Amino acid sequence: MDERGARILAAAAGLILRFGYDKTTMSDVATEAAVSKSTLYQYWRSKDELFRALLLQETLLLVDDWLRKVRQDPDGGTLHGIYRHGYTALLEHPLMHALYTKESQTLGSYVRHQDPEAHVRPYLLNRGLVRSLQAAGLVRQDIREEVITHALMIISVGLFSTPELLPQSVVPPFGDVAEALAHMVQAAFAPSPTGDSQRGKEALETFLHRLITKEGA
Amino acid sequence: MDERGARILAAAAGLILRFGYDKTTMSDVATEAAVSKSTLYQYWRSKDELFRALLLQETLLLVDDWLRKVRQDPDGGTLHGIYRHGYTALLEHPLMHALYTKESQTLGSYVRHQDPEAHVRPYLLNRGLVRSLQAAGLVRQDIREEVITHALMIISVGLFSTPELLPQSVVPPFGDVAEALAHMVQAAFAPSPTGDSQRGKEALETFLHRLITKEGA
Repeated sequence: MDERGARILAAAAGLILRFGYDKTTMSDVATEAAVSKSTLYQYWRSKDELFRALLLQETLLLVDDWLRKVRQDPDGGTLHGIYRHGYTALLEHPLMHALYTKESQTLGSYVRHQDPEAHVRPYLLNRGLVRSLQAAGLVRQDIREEVITHALMIISVGLFSTPELLPQSVVPPFGDVAEALAHMVQAAFAPSPTGDSQRGKEALETFLHRLITKEGA
Repeated sequence: MDERGARILAAAAGLILRFGYDKTTMSDVATEAAVSKSTLYQYWRSKDELFRALLLQETLLLVDDWLRKVRQDPDGGTLHGIYRHGYTALLEHPLMHALYTKESQTLGSYVRHQDPEAHVRPYLLNRGLVRSLQAAGLVRQDIREEVITHALMIISVGLFSTPELLPQSVVPPFGDVAEALAHMVQAAFAPSPTGDSQRGKEALETFLHRLITKEGA
């Protein structure tokens, strides 16, 4: 993407953060990015397409940060480490954080309007990650990989779907919830002892590489 | 509700199970229940209202079954028992089971279209249940009740939201997933030893009684 495209995405991210997705128009984005509307539409033909590009960009940034955090932590490759750092990365990315809290409706309806087949590939890749972690001794082997993967999927989906249902005022801080979820995953699915962190890092790296190379295609 | 109202609800449940919510019309329901359309509309003014009544009725039945299962099991009042029996009850109720699997979209959009304030009371009642279970020694006391409640909420919401995103063919059987979730909740939030099941039964009973008396009002 060229410099102008990057500027448009940054403008869109800023507007969504300040005013929310629904109240942000393509005109607002053009004004904020200091481009004409026709230029904007040359890049993305609709607000939906623009949002899709923004989400992809933010996902790539998030994945980078996630991997860096995992690599820097000696225990980063344990199940607890993998989850905790994932949630922390999410918390530190303003737009992704917003999409998991007050803008949860935006992410939810985007995700629900995709063809279910679009979710199958990442789901199966996740299953591959669980299988690798089982083989590497970082996930219990006495519960089937499909079942563990699905339980983890339920947590991920619940995480961004729950804020759609409850006013933010009653919900505890995201950081505390993330810590509880990482603990939950570890308590339920990690073996004791928790296994070789280095092998977990390698499994996560392989998984994220596969996830991204397709998404970027 | 009179006999005719009950017959209408049963007809609606049968049609939703066979053809799905979207394809079931008020005319279909009237025909199936052998009442005129004007009679049907005297009971419920819209398909939405009819669905709401049906959901309430099914929830009451489910709660009854759930409590009976918990009471009959010596370990039914532990965190694992409470969850496992809840999921089993869900699995055994055809309509509720459908709403958590192939009709998940129906439940999802119903729940999302309610005023968020409607979810606050049950959420706070759930928090009360967690607090009671903590006081009774059935839930760990070293994690805050709000955080545990929210983690449990994430699982519940994820459970009915996930089928909206994935084709059923890739998802493992509901029973296996339910067992994994009950295990997860127990591993993460039950103390060791798991506590006095009898006190857990009492806490659940109080909670469900409060939940229902308001919902029925």
